[in-house]
Amino acid sequence: MAKTFEVTILGVNSAYPIHGRHPSCQIVNYDNRLIMIDCGEAAQIQVSKYSIKRSKINHIFISHLHGDHCYGLPGLLSSYGLQGRKSTLNLHGPIGIKKFVEGIFEATEAYLPFELNILEYDTEEQSTVVIDSSITVETFPMKHRIPTMGFKIIETIPEFNIKVDAIKEFEMSIEEIKGAKIGNSIIRDGVEIANSKLTFPKKDGRSYAYCSDTVYDPDLLPYIMNSSLLYHETTYLDDHESLAKERMHTTLGQAIEIAKAAKIEKLIVGHYSSRYQDIDVFLEEGLPKFSGLMLGEEGRVYEV
Amino acid sequence: MAKTFEVTILGVNSAYPIHGRHPSCQIVNYDNRLIMIDCGEAAQIQVSKYSIKRSKINHIFISHLHGDHCYGLPGLLSSYGLQGRKSTLNLHGPIGIKKFVEGIFEATEAYLPFELNILEYDTEEQSTVVIDSSITVETFPMKHRIPTMGFKIIETIPEFNIKVDAIKEFEMSIEEIKGAKIGNSIIRDGVEIANSKLTFPKKDGRSYAYCSDTVYDPDLLPYIMNSSLLYHETTYLDDHESLAKERMHTTLGQAIEIAKAAKIEKLIVGHYSSRYQDIDVFLEEGLPKFSGLMLGEEGRVYEV
Repeated sequence: MAKTFEVTILGVNSAYPIHGRHPSCQIVNYDNRLIMIDCGEAAQIQVSKYSIKRSKINHIFISHLHGDHCYGLPGLLSSYGLQGRKSTLNLHGPIGIKKFVEGIFEATEAYLPFELNILEYDTEEQSTVVIDSSITVETFPMKHRIPTMGFKIIETIPEFNIKVDAIKEFEMSIEEIKGAKIGNSIIRDGVEIANSKLTFPKKDGRSYAYCSDTVYDPDLLPYIMNSSLLYHETTYLDDHESLAKERMHTTLGQAIEIAKAAKIEKLIVGHYSSRYQDIDVFLEEGLPKFSGLMLGEEGRVYEV
Repeated sequence: MAKTFEVTILGVNSAYPIHGRHPSCQIVNYDNRLIMIDCGEAAQIQVSKYSIKRSKINHIFISHLHGDHCYGLPGLLSSYGLQGRKSTLNLHGPIGIKKFVEGIFEATEAYLPFELNILEYDTEEQSTVVIDSSITVETFPMKHRIPTMGFKIIETIPEFNIKVDAIKEFEMSIEEIKGAKIGNSIIRDGVEIANSKLTFPKKDGRSYAYCSDTVYDPDLLPYIMNSSLLYHETTYLDDHESLAKERMHTTLGQAIEIAKAAKIEKLIVGHYSSRYQDIDVFLEEGLPKFSGLMLGEEGRVYEV
């Protein structure tokens, strides 16, 4: 069975909390290792509400330094300190995030009893962050009102899928099945049975692309091409295309165009403008155009 | 009828949000003019949840710069900006609050389309802030781990209470009643009827004292003496007296002692330690000692 690779959305509104929705925050879970993406105000409250194991979060990625993507950091980080966190926490963000965080902690005399490793990125460049042997995060430039980057979380060592027939034919043990999943062969009567006879060809690893906030931008396509799942901001419905352009956001129709052009089958939309009290309108307007459309909803879990 | 003077508690936990409780934040409502005291994370969410009219808040007082008393400021202030606030907002706090707020806004490129008037106080001194002709806030020194001040909100022009008999006897008009409430006399058959014949003697104005965070400290008494209502932190129950002293907090029994010594009849307790999932234990332990004890509870309104 494939390893867990899923996204839980904790905040899906733009600008400020309203209509019971919160500013941007998501948790990517790969095999019980958690990555937080963006950290709007009250992220730590949402983490508790949806029973996210905060001790499993070792990496936080911040797309840009607008408040609705980072004002939850001071509370989350200082609570980690008060709760006795010991392990290193890696905070990845645009140039300026170090000054933002350290300025707050200096002013409020917060003491962190763990190492906070702040890594700053030039958002104009593409970067690759190797989280561990099975997960890599690529950052890529996005166009917004301030320096902003998108993220692609990539499964780098996908497992082979075992052929059920092979298990029967060779009476494979549990250990042999585990071995075959990572590419091993087996021995029968002194003869090696190649892995290719036991498994299906290895597919590309699954991947999740996160694009928020951004103006409609086909330049993103090379970075997100063929992702298994895409989160793309849709601050507005299509009738506000000029407003979206002016404020460097995206409409629903534009996000669907991006998903189609990137050959992505599953699209989560979100970062809704506060003007939409009821977000079902996004589904009604978008689903006829793209059957893989899913509403971004807080507390909902999406498989990558 | 006396003017509205009440307190709504929006956050009552210490350190960080847990058990459905939020960090410190309160709203004092005097005759529909609102003052916020402390602004922990998610204060703006609590403001919405409990239908506080945020446009009526023109003054925010911050007791000290620990995160659980000020991490809600960036979100609240930037949301005011996004929502188009035009009127001046006065932010009162300890020395350092200007650097805290301005540092965040610089790092996150937040633009405020209204005047934010930041006033810094030496927490070692007593200060008097005249809000308007009917409300004054006194700040006073408290002893905590960092510079901290308490607040006393005082009704400076209480209205006279009209004698019902006088309304009948003199057939007073609505205008005359209004005038008598603020000290005017009336004329009958060319003769002046003194205000003292129309009203009861003017009592002292009502007052609300806020003491959080503080170690048990009888030096506070002169500042809060005879207040109508006291909020005093009780981070711990009595069995944690040594811990309270070490962390410069107060126990329930100590807060009751302070209330009694200050001749205050109504005491709200709060700033509960995260160790108390159920806060009813504070009522059970404290009520036998002090009948005017009230639990601080989020969303509850307390008359001053």
